[in-house]
Amino acid sequence: MLEPMRKLAVVLARLPGVGRRSAERIVLRLARERNGLARDLASALQTFTEQVEICSLCGAPTLRENDPCLLCADANRDKRLLCVVEDPGDIFLIERAGEYRGRYHALMGKLSPMRGEGRHNLRVDELLRRVDSEKPQEVILALNSDVEGEATAAYLTHLLADRPVRVTRLAAGIPAGSGIAYADPLTLARAFQGRRAP
Amino acid sequence: MLEPMRKLAVVLARLPGVGRRSAERIVLRLARERNGLARDLASALQTFTEQVEICSLCGAPTLRENDPCLLCADANRDKRLLCVVEDPGDIFLIERAGEYRGRYHALMGKLSPMRGEGRHNLRVDELLRRVDSEKPQEVILALNSDVEGEATAAYLTHLLADRPVRVTRLAAGIPAGSGIAYADPLTLARAFQGRRAP
Repeated sequence: MLEPMRKLAVVLARLPGVGRRSAERIVLRLARERNGLARDLASALQTFTEQVEICSLCGAPTLRENDPCLLCADANRDKRLLCVVEDPGDIFLIERAGEYRGRYHALMGKLSPMRGEGRHNLRVDELLRRVDSEKPQEVILALNSDVEGEATAAYLTHLLADRPVRVTRLAAGIPAGSGIAYADPLTLARAFQGRRAP
Repeated sequence: MLEPMRKLAVVLARLPGVGRRSAERIVLRLARERNGLARDLASALQTFTEQVEICSLCGAPTLRENDPCLLCADANRDKRLLCVVEDPGDIFLIERAGEYRGRYHALMGKLSPMRGEGRHNLRVDELLRRVDSEKPQEVILALNSDVEGEATAAYLTHLLADRPVRVTRLAAGIPAGSGIAYADPLTLARAFQGRRAP
């Protein structure tokens, strides 16, 4: 494969869900449709990088002219609540659930010593600054419940311990519409630990 | 999702192997890594479109400074053989097999009325011009053996019928290292039709 094609394939293989073989197939397709698909992709990518920025507050994608983003700038959102997520994409999912009405802060990842992702890769300092300046009453850690998510939650809880803010985590338990028979032992144990009055 | 993100996702979903959901995940990742992944992709794509062209003879990707491509320009290749493939990627596969030493011609697709791909989308006129000017002794149709590939082969055979060139197709039969028990009835029927002395 030609060098510029090989290099493009290497970058494409870094995209989520794209393996080495798919990347090569994509490059061949782009070569075949140089004046169609390849041009459209370059153009859409340029518009995207020119117009889309990361909100300096929450870290979610926002149009360059809207920073802070529309959600952060929304005066109707509850300033007393700050929800911490790993990925900006999680914000869309939580918004879709329609339950939460506070603000967000995306870490852009989680602590992962195995993959060399430490605190310096995450928006942790930004979080502390926001807690100090925006003074929310509650920081909700909406992190994933895998080992790395748990470690990140423990670390943030530790960092926030001496600040006048309540730190909470999402409830763990039986998924809606599911049953005990389908829950793994750890989920079931957590559902018991978190039991509450009906 | 923001408009420039949505538009980028629509283009990404046109890439082979990338669905709507993966495209959205890719866009979110690109937003998150605006200054890393997104910049690398834009840069690799630009180098690619600047340096990679389609060979004016065979249709395979080639560096802009090499047209005709190295393979078409190779004096050691057998000019008496011209192998017609659907996709330039097929050329790499055939080269890897190491059996064929002639030249190539990529159609850039196959006749597919269902998808609105007719003769005008394919490099058919280029093929006829090459047959007239390069005067190969044999045109080998190395097309896929699906319905559309068969229809394309029949159409090309018809077009080439009044020209002084032998038209052949790849043998159909039992795959190497496989057996009768694994062959579907059509493959088995073709293996019988194409039987030859050992």
